[in-house]
Amino acid sequence: MEIKKYKKEAEYSYTLGAFPTLELVEAMPERVVEVLVHSSFPEKELVEQKCGSIHVRQDNKLIEKLSDKENVYVVGIFEKYTCELKKDTRHIVLVNPSNMGNLGTIIRTACGFGYYDLAIIEPAADIFNPKTVRASMGSLFRIRHELFGSFDEYMSKYKDRALYPFMLDGSCSLAEAPKPENDYFSLIFGNEATGLPKEFSGYGCPVRIEQTEFVDSLNLTIAAGIGMYEFSRS
Amino acid sequence: MEIKKYKKEAEYSYTLGAFPTLELVEAMPERVVEVLVHSSFPEKELVEQKCGSIHVRQDNKLIEKLSDKENVYVVGIFEKYTCELKKDTRHIVLVNPSNMGNLGTIIRTACGFGYYDLAIIEPAADIFNPKTVRASMGSLFRIRHELFGSFDEYMSKYKDRALYPFMLDGSCSLAEAPKPENDYFSLIFGNEATGLPKEFSGYGCPVRIEQTEFVDSLNLTIAAGIGMYEFSRS
Repeated sequence: MEIKKYKKEAEYSYTLGAFPTLELVEAMPERVVEVLVHSSFPEKELVEQKCGSIHVRQDNKLIEKLSDKENVYVVGIFEKYTCELKKDTRHIVLVNPSNMGNLGTIIRTACGFGYYDLAIIEPAADIFNPKTVRASMGSLFRIRHELFGSFDEYMSKYKDRALYPFMLDGSCSLAEAPKPENDYFSLIFGNEATGLPKEFSGYGCPVRIEQTEFVDSLNLTIAAGIGMYEFSRS
Repeated sequence: MEIKKYKKEAEYSYTLGAFPTLELVEAMPERVVEVLVHSSFPEKELVEQKCGSIHVRQDNKLIEKLSDKENVYVVGIFEKYTCELKKDTRHIVLVNPSNMGNLGTIIRTACGFGYYDLAIIEPAADIFNPKTVRASMGSLFRIRHELFGSFDEYMSKYKDRALYPFMLDGSCSLAEAPKPENDYFSLIFGNEATGLPKEFSGYGCPVRIEQTEFVDSLNLTIAAGIGMYEFSRS
């Protein structure tokens, strides 16, 4: 196989950097094609040890090609995959997230708070783009994710869940929103610029994060982080 | 005065974009030198109206010079300033924040949760750099900020406050940390890569945000957002 710069249509993608690559190798070894190490990376042996039977190869030129100008010394090449969410776990639903850095950061936060199932409503930023993977610090490989063409499609597959759309004018404040007693719930967040469409105020319990008049809205990654924190608090 | 691209030593800085410029004009009109509008900006009249007696001028070339390649149609030129924090309010203390985007995002979040006093322990990202100002969406002009050479310097000026350093190994979980009964408290966050130095575990009540084993730490802006949320909850 010829290894090219990443494109959305490609069957393979890359982890850029030692940390996300080691996460990939640990969480999903069966998807790894090979691992590339730069000659100036001082801990090649450690990487080889972690990789076990996965092929590790030195190739400065290919690393530079795949990573643009950034300082990257370790690259993992992996096969893209699809998964299904679990039904009996808490879900994060992102409706039309547009920024790869934000998507990766939300994945990392979700993983930190024990949300391992992520639904994405398209159009959306590419979850396998190396930028997303890098922003997630490799947490992507610790979670299940599933893409949907519409929120209706998500709802008809994952029925009977408590829905919490986060909206600026949500009827419940986050602190006072009745918290679910089991894990059959979904926290739903909208697009960075536009938030959730109005019709989401008709679903479940629309939640607002109380804020002063001085900001128009919180940054999406922060709103999502606060929501996940509050719903994993107890 | 000749208007040059921003440098840290300069006495002036810039707001890039209509939104942060209007925040500047509303919150701190006395610091504004003038406002520049691009000929392709459709709402020049609205800007003029908001600016009142502040000088508004069309200057495409200068806007392009100050904003690099980004799509910016409105620029505010303002005089840099210093301020002192209030003593009887809750403070955010950032120890060596290194990223301008993060610093701006934290300012915006602070403003959203009603924290209007920010101490910064240097070395630190430049709070007046246009990138910081832009990431704050102009919230910078809604808060007081003060720079310190060391945390000791901050403490000797602002005494008798409850201190909450956020640390991965903090002895209290965030949810269980005893919350202050008045506003004489400070939430303290460390550098993006290194967190707070060890000695901070000796100050006040060190707080940890509970997280799974699968992430090494939360993103600084998210940890700060969650901390501010939790301490303004109730």
